[in-house]
Amino acid sequence: MKVNAYAAQNATTTLAPVDIQRRDRGKHDVEIDILYCGVCHSDLHTVRNEWESTTYPCIPGHEIIGRVVNVGAQANKFKKGDIVGVGCMVDACLTCANCKKDLEQFCEKGMTWTYNSPDKLMGGMTFGGYSESIVVDKAFVLKIPKHLDLASAAPLLCAGITTYSPLRRNHVRKGQKVGIVGLGGLGHVGVKLAKAFGAHVVVFTTSPSKVEDALRLGADEVVISTNADEMKPHLNSFHFILDTVSAQHDINAYLVLLGRDGNLTQVGVPAKPLSLNVGSLVFGQRSLSGSLIGGIKETQEMLDFCGKHNITADIELIPIQNINEAYDRLVKSDVKYRFVIDMASLQPAL
Amino acid sequence: MKVNAYAAQNATTTLAPVDIQRRDRGKHDVEIDILYCGVCHSDLHTVRNEWESTTYPCIPGHEIIGRVVNVGAQANKFKKGDIVGVGCMVDACLTCANCKKDLEQFCEKGMTWTYNSPDKLMGGMTFGGYSESIVVDKAFVLKIPKHLDLASAAPLLCAGITTYSPLRRNHVRKGQKVGIVGLGGLGHVGVKLAKAFGAHVVVFTTSPSKVEDALRLGADEVVISTNADEMKPHLNSFHFILDTVSAQHDINAYLVLLGRDGNLTQVGVPAKPLSLNVGSLVFGQRSLSGSLIGGIKETQEMLDFCGKHNITADIELIPIQNINEAYDRLVKSDVKYRFVIDMASLQPAL
Repeated sequence: MKVNAYAAQNATTTLAPVDIQRRDRGKHDVEIDILYCGVCHSDLHTVRNEWESTTYPCIPGHEIIGRVVNVGAQANKFKKGDIVGVGCMVDACLTCANCKKDLEQFCEKGMTWTYNSPDKLMGGMTFGGYSESIVVDKAFVLKIPKHLDLASAAPLLCAGITTYSPLRRNHVRKGQKVGIVGLGGLGHVGVKLAKAFGAHVVVFTTSPSKVEDALRLGADEVVISTNADEMKPHLNSFHFILDTVSAQHDINAYLVLLGRDGNLTQVGVPAKPLSLNVGSLVFGQRSLSGSLIGGIKETQEMLDFCGKHNITADIELIPIQNINEAYDRLVKSDVKYRFVIDMASLQPAL
Repeated sequence: MKVNAYAAQNATTTLAPVDIQRRDRGKHDVEIDILYCGVCHSDLHTVRNEWESTTYPCIPGHEIIGRVVNVGAQANKFKKGDIVGVGCMVDACLTCANCKKDLEQFCEKGMTWTYNSPDKLMGGMTFGGYSESIVVDKAFVLKIPKHLDLASAAPLLCAGITTYSPLRRNHVRKGQKVGIVGLGGLGHVGVKLAKAFGAHVVVFTTSPSKVEDALRLGADEVVISTNADEMKPHLNSFHFILDTVSAQHDINAYLVLLGRDGNLTQVGVPAKPLSLNVGSLVFGQRSLSGSLIGGIKETQEMLDFCGKHNITADIELIPIQNINEAYDRLVKSDVKYRFVIDMASLQPAL
């Protein structure tokens, strides 16, 4: 099946219309017309080959919301017209120990990313959500709570689960003091989730211009992290800190804010190694962890939680024709807080 | 009470005999004649002011085994003749939240280290175990299982608890694969403890000369960490790794050996920051922690466990007159695996 999409043909040119081939629907497959696709920073990294692992043409997009148009014979837990989501993964073995534990992101045979990942069925690489439609195994299709604003819900498929999973794993709850480092696409969803879990939420930002917005999003306090006088009163006081910053930054400044047995979890991956003062961990029995998206079961749990608490991202809806400008603005963090592409804007390639 | 001791008078001269003042026994105090004192690397760092926090004269030593010679009226859980131990701490508030949780090492008012720490009762700084006797609050005095070799048991008071606590906190047990990085004073006790907990133990060392010894100490496997071919088969396979190395080293090489949710705990504190690849944590949902000795209750539990399993350190017993030579050998890691001072060798200062 030939479908319209937007692709990067190499690391330096802009994205432009193409048509691509989607596989024929198999018996386990769900065929989805894409309504909205969030723009994750990973899209930009991949398109520009900043992780040096991109195969071109590259069609990014892993925050997909769409409408089911057809289902395979054994995919009848979905039906035509259902509003569904697809996140960062579209395949995994589903039989290894990690898959059996609903942690498909750690599939021992290697899971398949939604884009720029070897496509086991079609050959070549997977193509993501900057496209008209997608065909996905039912095991990787999520149900979207009906009453959520669909465009604003798209970023939950990556930014939502990426922040939800470590907050849950660390049992963030009422009575706890929780920090969110960075108020971007991930951080702003993290603030909403941590508040919904009942925590006292402190946002760390380098931008004084974001203080008011952080409070509006639900933060109880906002700290300008470059101001030592603002940081100091928080020493040894946090139960948990979620660090969403993927730029180079000083994690030690945050580690010392953790109380005994406190944990800081990184969900961003800075391109170069960070400098770590081991003493910050030893004197305080603290820990530093990493977290990678979340499994499908937990992603559905997150979506249901967001449905219940009416949590979506703050977005700026764009036509796909503005995607290159959006990337340039993303580099400057000039977005509050996620671009989402209105896929109705997509036209056939000339 | 005036007692004989060995002190450093500044960062550059050798240790030499002095006499020092011990406080009069209070009602909560235990007066202990010191029989043996282990030589911890911290002693050397402090004596040579390598942490730039030493007040002179400095009398180090926090792996103390001795015999009770007198007890205060309210310290009668001990009696004259008891064989007891004193570790890294000699005082704490005992009333704060951390002390109430038996974590005196994190006393919110600040605990008192056994040496080079402000002495709340006597003024000046505390003096450690390179001395004839010591007077310690009963809350910081440990009971030593009678059948253990006393000289070899001395290192348990620091090296023992420092390795026991993180192994316990991480629930090291049968069926797990556990790594011990570095085979020194801490590491060699860590190997014995991890084996006693039932784990499959892999020792990482840079010294081919230590392979045979590691196996003798109980390791199931030994890996020369500088050999990539030996490291590679262990990727993604460890439940827990205890890193005892306080020299600069590449922790990323060990982080990637952890399986999903695996933890690496550092008990050594390198003088300079380490380089951390955050991706090693994120892709694998791994964590990196620090651990600082252990509380008094856990130290007693560790001693009782060592009594039950007949675990002590491998030591080289020295007269105190050889302490300066021992320090020079310690710098070269030329000791298997802990120097312990036979305090019977101590003579009055001239």
